[in-house]
This record gives sequence, C-alpha cells and structure tokens, in this order.
Amino acid sequence: MGEFDLIKRYFSRPARRAVLSVGDDCALLAPSPGQHLAFSTDSLVEGRHFLPTVNPALLGHKALAVNLSDLAACGATPRAFLLSLTLPRVDEAWLSGFAQGLWALADQSDCELIGGDTTQGPLHINITVIGEVPRGLALLRSGAQVGDDVYVSGTLGDARVALEVFRGHLSVPENVFSQARSRMEQPTPRLALGVALRGLASSAVDISDGLVGDLGHILKASQVGADIEIVRAMPLLACAPDLDLPPAQQLEFVLAGGDDYELVFTAPPHQRDAVVAAGIDSDTRVTRIGTLRAGQGIQLIDEQGHALAHQFKSFDHFA
Amino acid sequence: MGEFDLIKRYFSRPARRAVLSVGDDCALLAPSPGQHLAFSTDSLVEGRHFLPTVNPALLGHKALAVNLSDLAACGATPRAFLLSLTLPRVDEAWLSGFAQGLWALADQSDCELIGGDTTQGPLHINITVIGEVPRGLALLRSGAQVGDDVYVSGTLGDARVALEVFRGHLSVPENVFSQARSRMEQPTPRLALGVALRGLASSAVDISDGLVGDLGHILKASQVGADIEIVRAMPLLACAPDLDLPPAQQLEFVLAGGDDYELVFTAPPHQRDAVVAAGIDSDTRVTRIGTLRAGQGIQLIDEQGHALAHQFKSFDHFA
Repeated sequence: MGEFDLIKRYFSRPARRAVLSVGDDCALLAPSPGQHLAFSTDSLVEGRHFLPTVNPALLGHKALAVNLSDLAACGATPRAFLLSLTLPRVDEAWLSGFAQGLWALADQSDCELIGGDTTQGPLHINITVIGEVPRGLALLRSGAQVGDDVYVSGTLGDARVALEVFRGHLSVPENVFSQARSRMEQPTPRLALGVALRGLASSAVDISDGLVGDLGHILKASQVGADIEIVRAMPLLACAPDLDLPPAQQLEFVLAGGDDYELVFTAPPHQRDAVVAAGIDSDTRVTRIGTLRAGQGIQLIDEQGHALAHQFKSFDHFA
Repeated sequence: MGEFDLIKRYFSRPARRAVLSVGDDCALLAPSPGQHLAFSTDSLVEGRHFLPTVNPALLGHKALAVNLSDLAACGATPRAFLLSLTLPRVDEAWLSGFAQGLWALADQSDCELIGGDTTQGPLHINITVIGEVPRGLALLRSGAQVGDDVYVSGTLGDARVALEVFRGHLSVPENVFSQARSRMEQPTPRLALGVALRGLASSAVDISDGLVGDLGHILKASQVGADIEIVRAMPLLACAPDLDLPPAQQLEFVLAGGDDYELVFTAPPHQRDAVVAAGIDSDTRVTRIGTLRAGQGIQLIDEQGHALAHQFKSFDHFA
C-alpha cells in the first residue's frame, strides 16, 4: 500500500464543518465571527513518549488527547486538527488500531481531521490542533493574582505509578496497575472544564510535565508565588489507598509525576462557589490545593502551617 | 541548556499580528474578516528528506519553504506557523544556524512563528503553516476543465540533478552542481505567483514529488487528462545546456525529478495574456507546457504531435 492509499484508507473523510479537508495542498476553514482561533502542537516520539509495545488504538487516542489538553487549558473548543505521521513501514494492523483510537476521540470531541503529512522514518506522531474561543475569554498563564486560590482537576500522579511499574521500580497489585496504566495511556482532556472556567479562572495551564513545573509557568508568567497545602494535595494520587507508598514518594508522584493532562488553574476567592459549580457542570473533580502569594516559586505547607523544603523538578527533554 | 531556555533563546519573539504567541498553552490568532484560513503541514526527516551534513541554515529555510509552497499552491498569503522540533541533543551551533535560516524566510514572507514543541529523539522537523485567502478565491486541485492550458512556474529537475550527484550517479561541473544544489537546498515558495493567480487559474498544485505525480493530483481531482508537449517541457531543466545528458534522462528529471517546489496550474486559453501578466507581476517565470483533454492520465506529445509511451512515476514514501 502506497502513501496515498494509506491516507485514503485510514485518514480521509468528507469535510464536515471545514470548507476543504484532506486531499488538497491546504485545508480551508471559515472562522466563526467573534472567535479567536487557538493553536497548539505536540509530538509523540517512540521510546521517549511511548513504548514500541503500546496498543496503537491507545496511542491514537493519546496523540490527540495531549493536544486537546492544551485547548482545554485555554478554554477553547476543538475545531480541527492536522496529523503528521512518520512511519518506519506500512503496518496495516497498527494503522487500523491507531486510526480507530484517533477517530474515536476526534468524534467525541467534535474535532475534525482536515489535513496532514505521511513520511517514512522512525515512528513519530505530530498533531496540530485548532480550536475556537470567544475573543477576550481565553484562559492565559499570565492572569493570576496574589490571593487567588489554586485548583487542580482530576487526580495526579497515577500515570507516574504506571511508568514506575514499567521501569521495574515499583510493584503494585494488578487492578491498581490497570487503573494507573489507563491514566498513563488514555488521558482525558478536560475540555468541558476549560469551557466552564471561561471568565471565572484567572489563569490555567495543563499539567504534562508535573504540577510543580507547570504551575511554575503560571507563577512566572503572572509574577506571583504559591503556597500548596500538602494535606490537600496528597489525596490526589487516586491509587494511594491501595499502595504502601512512603509519604515522600506519594508526594513526589503528585507534585512531579508527569503525563497527568489535568488542569491547574487559579481563581479569586469570591469565585469559590462558581468554581465548584463549574466542576459539577463539567462532571470533573476539582480540588482546591493552595493560594497565591507575593514573591516567586512554590512553597509546600504542612498540616501545622509550616513551610517544607522540597526539590521537585519538572520534566525537561534536554535537562 | 534545557528545553525552555532553548525555546526562549532561538524561537521566541514578541507577538506581531498574533493575539498571543510562543509561551502559553495555545497561540491565538484573530482571523481577518472575509478570509478563509488555509492550513498545511509537512515534516522533514533526517536521512529521508535531508542528509545529516546539510547546512542547518539551509534546512531551516527549506523546512518553512516546503510548507509555504503549499500555501502558494492555494493562492494563500502566509500568516503564521508552528514548529515541532525533535532533536537528538542540544547543539547550539546547529540550532543557531537552523534558526537563522528559518527566521530569514519567515521575515521575508511575513509569516510569524506562534508556537511549537521541542522533544528529544531522531532529528525530525515538522511545520504547520497558516495562511489566509479571500473566501471563494482559493486555488484548488479540482477546478480544471477540458481545454485549459497547463503551466509550470520556474524550472524543473535541477534539484534532482543535485541529488543524483550526491548519490554518485552523475558527475557535473562544479558551477552547475552549485546551482543545482541551491535549487535542492533552498527552494523558493511561489507565494507572489499564487496570489497573482487568484481568480485566474482554474487549478493549481505544488510540485514536490515530480511534475507527473503532482499534475496527476489535479487530473484525478478534476477528472480530466493532459497532453504535455515535450518540446516545451524539456527546456525547463535549467542546467541542461551545461550538461551532456541523454534526452530521456533530461526528460525524466523534468517530469519526475522531485523536490522542485514550483507550481503547476491550469487556466482557460482566454486567460493567456493574464497569466503572462501574473508571471511578470510576480517576477516568476511561467511556461505553458500543454493542454487538458477529456479522459485521464498524462500523455506526452513529441514535436510531430505523436503520443509517446512513458513510465514516469511520482515519489511515494511507501511504494
């Protein structure tokens, strides 16, 4: 099967909302009045972001999910995406699985595949996603204020538990591993929460490199510091009750686990009820974990209100 | 140097026309009224699209140029791009060269870098480009009609001459090689011509896999066939007068060379003067090479008007 048959068989459908979709030099979109277009791009590289043995359907899901997570963090609604696929060879079973996982999430999030590129080389998946957000309502990293509350969606650190099991550093019961693994392999982009937080959250970012690192982007862009209460953060590791982890390791997984694809966001204290309502409306768990203060960096606070020393680092591809 | 320093040093500038540029979860653009947005994406993979020894500044140019060439083929004006860079390691000399070549073409074509992604792995460059074209004026592959003339921009096949020299299959004088090599390594996206052809050309496509293959996309999408006059096509190989190539090989380079990044387009015969004017206005050589007819496929016509058998194939990553 050649390049064009491959595209036709697995990655072509008639345009839905797009003016022109897969199959010309460019795709064409007609922007909606009053909206800004939001763009993000993310690559997944074999051996770096996923193992060669990963289920291709889960990989298809994840490649799109990590991009949609960036739209969620901006409060944008998905509109379309482009897929660049570099494959060592044409493996129809792999392609069929990959396409199935990709289309399932694309349909579920109403995000249309409008174009792409297929080349030969080491397995590499790149997606560029396009969303829409009403002018002036995008959630940015730079809007946080001293006194704002800090929240996270969902749970944190479970994907890291699965990674540590794969690395042979941790042994956990089968049912715990299965849940942790699905958190790693099938993240849920928090799109509905992102939309519900428009006009409510003062800042937001998605957590891909760990809470400390990604919250750090908000702090830097907004020139504030944060106090995080460990008693509120610790329970975010969903599988903790089933494991016999030392508290320090549990905390590390929550604060610097990576691959969470949850949102960390801030909102002024008078919006607490509205944030709770946004969580309920979007069917998304939301936990308040701290407060912004003047200064810089993240300070961990224990149950007695004392500051704790910590050295949690964000994931960096080249550090 | 870590991931974020790398982005900051080489790939961040303040937003120009973008609402929000590099440094948040998403970039934001405000679409212009009355315009459609055009999207295209292309990857360059080491060992497949370029040699490890290539000058990084030329590679930075080419990675953007091949994407801009798709905008040109649609008659779109460049607006912005996203860059996904997968690097085996942080090599500052390489990055600095790559960034220089990339920014030079970005500035020249008024195309703003608004976002991207940096990961570690085998060298891989992906760019997604965003352009604008007035509603209804995009040049498509599907608009060609029987009786239309077929044109190409610039020259064809010289990039292939350079490739054959690199492969050791061809030996040419140094000055010829140097010109052919610059055609391979520094293609010129035909943006001004694409804009000048709005409302004039009935179809267009950019030539990346060879004239026969890419014109074939127009023929298939428009359900027509083409007669190509070899006496008109042969002189398109710019370096031919300096070489002692058999006519059959010269023809192969013109028709199926690859890596040309010229436009092949069609227009009705009553537009001949207007097409000539579009070439002059955009300072781009334009050559009429044939005519569309009913049927399918490409027929080569010799000086006596006889049909010639041919077997030229388009480049296919997996064929």
